[in-house]
Amino acid sequence: MRNNLREAVIFAGETMASRDIQNERSDNKFILTRVGVTDVKKPVRVRRPDRATTLTVDLDVFVDLPSSMKGSHMSRNLEAIGEIVDSSVRQPVAGLEDLSLMICRKLLERHEYASYSEARASAYYFLEKETPLGTKSLERFKLVARAEARSGEQPGTKKSIGVEVVGMTTCPCAMETISGSTSGLKVEQAITHNQRNKTFVMMDVPEGMTVEADDLVHIVERSMSSPTYEILKREDEAELVRRAHSNPRFVEDVVRGVLAHILEEFKDLPDWVQVQVKSESEESIHKHNAFAERVTTLGELRG
Amino acid sequence: MRNNLREAVIFAGETMASRDIQNERSDNKFILTRVGVTDVKKPVRVRRPDRATTLTVDLDVFVDLPSSMKGSHMSRNLEAIGEIVDSSVRQPVAGLEDLSLMICRKLLERHEYASYSEARASAYYFLEKETPLGTKSLERFKLVARAEARSGEQPGTKKSIGVEVVGMTTCPCAMETISGSTSGLKVEQAITHNQRNKTFVMMDVPEGMTVEADDLVHIVERSMSSPTYEILKREDEAELVRRAHSNPRFVEDVVRGVLAHILEEFKDLPDWVQVQVKSESEESIHKHNAFAERVTTLGELRG
Amino acid sequence: MRNNLREAVIFAGETMASRDIQNERSDNKFILTRVGVTDVKKPVRVRRPDRATTLTVDLDVFVDLPSSMKGSHMSRNLEAIGEIVDSSVRQPVAGLEDLSLMICRKLLERHEYASYSEARASAYYFLEKETPLGTKSLERFKLVARAEARSGEQPGTKKSIGVEVVGMTTCPCAMETISGSTSGLKVEQAITHNQRNKTFVMMDVPEGMTVEADDLVHIVERSMSSPTYEILKREDEAELVRRAHSNPRFVEDVVRGVLAHILEEFKDLPDWVQVQVKSESEESIHKHNAFAERVTTLGELRG
Amino acid sequence: MRNNLREAVIFAGETMASRDIQNERSDNKFILTRVGVTDVKKPVRVRRPDRATTLTVDLDVFVDLPSSMKGSHMSRNLEAIGEIVDSSVRQPVAGLEDLSLMICRKLLERHEYASYSEARASAYYFLEKETPLGTKSLERFKLVARAEARSGEQPGTKKSIGVEVVGMTTCPCAMETISGSTSGLKVEQAITHNQRNKTFVMMDVPEGMTVEADDLVHIVERSMSSPTYEILKREDEAELVRRAHSNPRFVEDVVRGVLAHILEEFKDLPDWVQVQVKSESEESIHKHNAFAERVTTLGELRG
Repeated sequence: MRNNLREAVIFAGETMASRDIQNERSDNKFILTRVGVTDVKKPVRVRRPDRATTLTVDLDVFVDLPSSMKGSHMSRNLEAIGEIVDSSVRQPVAGLEDLSLMICRKLLERHEYASYSEARASAYYFLEKETPLGTKSLERFKLVARAEARSGEQPGTKKSIGVEVVGMTTCPCAMETISGSTSGLKVEQAITHNQRNKTFVMMDVPEGMTVEADDLVHIVERSMSSPTYEILKREDEAELVRRAHSNPRFVEDVVRGVLAHILEEFKDLPDWVQVQVKSESEESIHKHNAFAERVTTLGELRG
Repeated sequence: MRNNLREAVIFAGETMASRDIQNERSDNKFILTRVGVTDVKKPVRVRRPDRATTLTVDLDVFVDLPSSMKGSHMSRNLEAIGEIVDSSVRQPVAGLEDLSLMICRKLLERHEYASYSEARASAYYFLEKETPLGTKSLERFKLVARAEARSGEQPGTKKSIGVEVVGMTTCPCAMETISGSTSGLKVEQAITHNQRNKTFVMMDVPEGMTVEADDLVHIVERSMSSPTYEILKREDEAELVRRAHSNPRFVEDVVRGVLAHILEEFKDLPDWVQVQVKSESEESIHKHNAFAERVTTLGELRG
Repeated sequence: MRNNLREAVIFAGETMASRDIQNERSDNKFILTRVGVTDVKKPVRVRRPDRATTLTVDLDVFVDLPSSMKGSHMSRNLEAIGEIVDSSVRQPVAGLEDLSLMICRKLLERHEYASYSEARASAYYFLEKETPLGTKSLERFKLVARAEARSGEQPGTKKSIGVEVVGMTTCPCAMETISGSTSGLKVEQAITHNQRNKTFVMMDVPEGMTVEADDLVHIVERSMSSPTYEILKREDEAELVRRAHSNPRFVEDVVRGVLAHILEEFKDLPDWVQVQVKSESEESIHKHNAFAERVTTLGELRG
Repeated sequence: MRNNLREAVIFAGETMASRDIQNERSDNKFILTRVGVTDVKKPVRVRRPDRATTLTVDLDVFVDLPSSMKGSHMSRNLEAIGEIVDSSVRQPVAGLEDLSLMICRKLLERHEYASYSEARASAYYFLEKETPLGTKSLERFKLVARAEARSGEQPGTKKSIGVEVVGMTTCPCAMETISGSTSGLKVEQAITHNQRNKTFVMMDVPEGMTVEADDLVHIVERSMSSPTYEILKREDEAELVRRAHSNPRFVEDVVRGVLAHILEEFKDLPDWVQVQVKSESEESIHKHNAFAERVTTLGELRG
């Protein structure tokens, strides 16, 4: 879209050099928090334990803009993305959070006027899971990553990885009411309503440390009433329903469950690590959704 | 966007009359099935039993284009919509299907080269419903309407009205498996899984006859395991869960239930009336949805 | 969905009082930042200069949850919304930010365990605008509002109003390159590419003061290359194109323009007022979008 | 979700065999047009000229249901999909239309009561393209495929392949008006407005013949005012703008251009081949979109 002076071509017969309109002094002096491109799609090679796979990744990338620059050089964002993605063909990236951070570093190199860069990435990926009765099932999950880099007086980088997991919650409240009104019925035998639940968890990943997306998926699935599966033959389906009813969960319970598992699993991570957990149950008895969220740090959680 | 010759303004000092580029002969001679505008939004006054209300309506409108015309006059579509919508302020329309048909007629008037016009409209609207224990609850539904008009040798018009209803389905299969494996358990006491279900029904409305959207909503709600409500206090929630478990429904059952109710309720409508019913259950035990559909006529259904 | 003990009904023959499962001690002791409901839709009566109108409003509402509570009483959220919306039938609300704040206050009343409440509202609304050549045109805009209320040691409330405006940006850079390479061509006569642009601005509204959504719309439209209109006959279209080419704008310029206008127009607002402006140009020469954003306070802007 | 009798497990102590609820006689006798699953996601290996790649594919699959069956065996749909997708790991499929047809055949095998099956697939894929000045650019396109299979008296299959392409259209009308009002200005030098355009084309692929998605992409790109590219340095951007202004196109022109190219390129395809072309320009001077569509057969076009 817009490039800098060094790339300007002077045409024969042209008496005036092409102005570099982005480098001109801005009329109004406001800095901008983020300038960049959104809804970029790229095929990215990602390393998996056994082999590499190609994910279709959505990317948004930004840098800040000083008040002295009229515009950012937008095409440099695509060049930065392109270089990193191209190199993934030869050397698959370890994860979307690493991809994001590599792009952030490249952004700061290319936008010499910027002191901050940010990249967000998301993609569907697939994990082999096992149904209650032990059948293999390939399940989909959404990966979400984010990174930022800062130059200047306090240089540094930050990266985070997250997942969105679709699972099932079973309402404890209706179960209580109904078992309470039926003599001799154990609570877990009581009928109730259940929901498709979408839970998202995202965490900072300190430099030199690793947080596996697969582990986050596992943590979320253990915090729901039950994971969900593509293929459930009759007895598998019944077993899943029984388990989900033995483990009724409010949307609040899911978030708290994820937080508890995170505390347990990531004892080595420092206190400053930010954690966001949100869970939404698409209610079957209402047209609206139930929602719960915690935004915090490991330090606060360890309290 | 584009207008006809009569509207062209001749500028002072201009030696050449402005060409009417849409009226020019098309280089290639293909007729077009639909040319028009999509994603138009309008506030429309609609008549309700007690009073008028304003709906925020999404509109798509089209006419056909003969091979002799290079382009359609796009701004005429907005003029046609505008006139009809404006007149709804003074005289609220009876329903979105009538609005759509009025727009279709106006489209044929304004596009003198067209022999076909089509309008599609949709909007959320609200109905007061009663929960199982009798509390009033204002529930949302989606109205969908469509109309077409033809001039030429076989002139005529057609209009259809439809609704999308969100409700609840309870799985009969898991219920059977689980009750079958538990001695002394009545089927309707067996636990199972349930889903948020979205069911859509649309029907032609012959001239001079009426199909009320409210009646279609009622038909769909009776065909699900249970309607859903905004506010359900504890006992209302338990009662809804009990009723939904007494009335387990596959997504196929919902579609067939709607078809059966339609046959019963609309005995006066002619055989040629087209009917579409589709139902989607957003599964709580899977990440995908279950789906069923019937596209037919009243004549075929009456078989 | 879930209600408190006072609402529990004791059944005949029941030996154990129905437990209030939400009031029970949570197994794990985490507080939650937000618990509530999302995707609630309501018809809301809003006051306009001349008359009242009905908007179809999307609502998300939340309260915080102390560690001592197992769950939030979800149905109270719908009761709080319902009461405020119902009263709007008799007394139309002044705006969505006021609606949101009224709901926040009601939420704190009803959730006696909560110390924080939050409401978000959005809806399409319509304003009569004038095309370059003076024709009236009813244009759509999106209203976005947010409010929060706090009880406890530092009680207080906050509300914000925002708008999303669709308009047009014309690229200054291609225009420069092309005029620079064509002798005798004035810059504003040079061809270039232009974009559908979506710009969002949101601001805090201090108690006792007013920020009109209509004014925010006007500020955004003045900051783009041109507003857009539903109906543009040929000469209006040409005039709009000429004006947009006389006023080329990067997405960065749009954000800065909005910031400059805000400084000018809202001199009376205090320094602590938060301002978010973001602008996205859906590029016609790329498949991705260009984006710019500033998140700041009036104090920082006044610098 | 639901399986057939052969898969039912008899529990110890159970006196009554588990009923196969899907095979039971339906209370109401309506056949269903489509019963199946929607929003299934799968990683599929697809053959490309040089190598195989993995696409993230969205799938909807259906069979018809006779009136004698209460329900369809939903889990068989996932088994059918799973088998075909799994085998693509060893032997990459030739394209999404072939994948869809293989799934359709498997669906008829597995649902012995069905006489019709249908599969729809879509995915993003990437092609290397060249900018006006010859730089390589990896561009994204959306693949859309559909297949159906019929058993019974008139057995047969059908498959179709389509693409959605994002490109650019430049308005011929404003260009005419503006050049007409400026003495000495050539039309292609006149300023105008342009749009992000999304064009979709889909065609039947007769058995034993091939329609390459890449060719459809090329046909659409040649029918727009210009293709779009990720990275455009200054002179490339100017050149693209010049070309787009030398080739102004209404949305109607795009559809007709695609139809003309199809006639030229696919002379060997039979008359019965169905063709759908639709094009939507996201207007920069309006908030709504302009739309054109032709639904036809090669025979009619050759007319």
